[in-house]
Amino acid sequence: MKKYKVVFHVDEMNKWELTINNANNILKDVKEEVEVVVLANYESVKLVNSKENYDRDLMKETHKKGAKYIACKNALKGQKIPEEDVLDFVELVQAGVSELTKLQHEGYAYIKP
Amino acid sequence: MKKYKVVFHVDEMNKWELTINNANNILKDVKEEVEVVVLANYESVKLVNSKENYDRDLMKETHKKGAKYIACKNALKGQKIPEEDVLDFVELVQAGVSELTKLQHEGYAYIKP
Amino acid sequence: MKKYKVVFHVDEMNKWELTINNANNILKDVKEEVEVVVLANYESVKLVNSKENYDRDLMKETHKKGAKYIACKNALKGQKIPEEDVLDFVELVQAGVSELTKLQHEGYAYIKP
Repeated sequence: MKKYKVVFHVDEMNKWELTINNANNILKDVKEEVEVVVLANYESVKLVNSKENYDRDLMKETHKKGAKYIACKNALKGQKIPEEDVLDFVELVQAGVSELTKLQHEGYAYIKP
Repeated sequence: MKKYKVVFHVDEMNKWELTINNANNILKDVKEEVEVVVLANYESVKLVNSKENYDRDLMKETHKKGAKYIACKNALKGQKIPEEDVLDFVELVQAGVSELTKLQHEGYAYIKP
Repeated sequence: MKKYKVVFHVDEMNKWELTINNANNILKDVKEEVEVVVLANYESVKLVNSKENYDRDLMKETHKKGAKYIACKNALKGQKIPEEDVLDFVELVQAGVSELTKLQHEGYAYIKP
């Protein structure tokens, strides 16, 4: 078990870059010791739509370093994004807010960039 | 005692709709198992002023489903809203930030939509 | 050991005033019982640049009342602020997000104004 656990919460498109940079910074700082989750809900799930063309280089790099990406199915529905179009390395949960609650109950710190 | 506890923090008027939708989503997802608190401070307390006309249908619905709404007295003073004008189902605390701290010490997860 | 512990997270310049007011409100409400940390990263570190002229009266007052101010070195670098120019009462950490995670693991509540 790793020493530190943290979930980053993103719900606005214009906060993705900062959120991924934050995830990258903690991975660089305490890499072997931290479990990183990035959870996206509301409009921010647009970024995980594989049919849309975004720069996802740092997102993929942090994923390779161990960051887990999770998106909210309710939000995908709200944004009319079919689940099969979601990037293949992104996990899905029914309600992002339930997952944020559960993760904190499991000892994850919460950061909202 | 319920399995999950979460406090949603709102301090901007333009985040109320998202916050109430978030509260509704977790209640739909894990209804019997979650204690939900919505805490409003700073300018967001305008919504709890019964003298102002806002659409509060989903707010009332989530309240009926068990969500507790709390507003900060310091913020009411800052917005010049008399305490007696606050919606009758909204509880008051002196300082919203103290309540957010206490709730987290009691095991509540924190979400800032 | 104090009864309550809370870290306020600020990463936008336009949230500094609200953040410091929040810190001041909890100190007024439960002064003897609360450890308050204000952690600044991303663009918000501009405020801790001693070469820039900002109104820092309430910031200094809350510091005198016991609030600890911490800034992120990664963010200082991003904003091209030399570490020696940081206000003398502000402590530095390599990565603000690591510190936010560690503080929560130590039992600090988290608030993002």
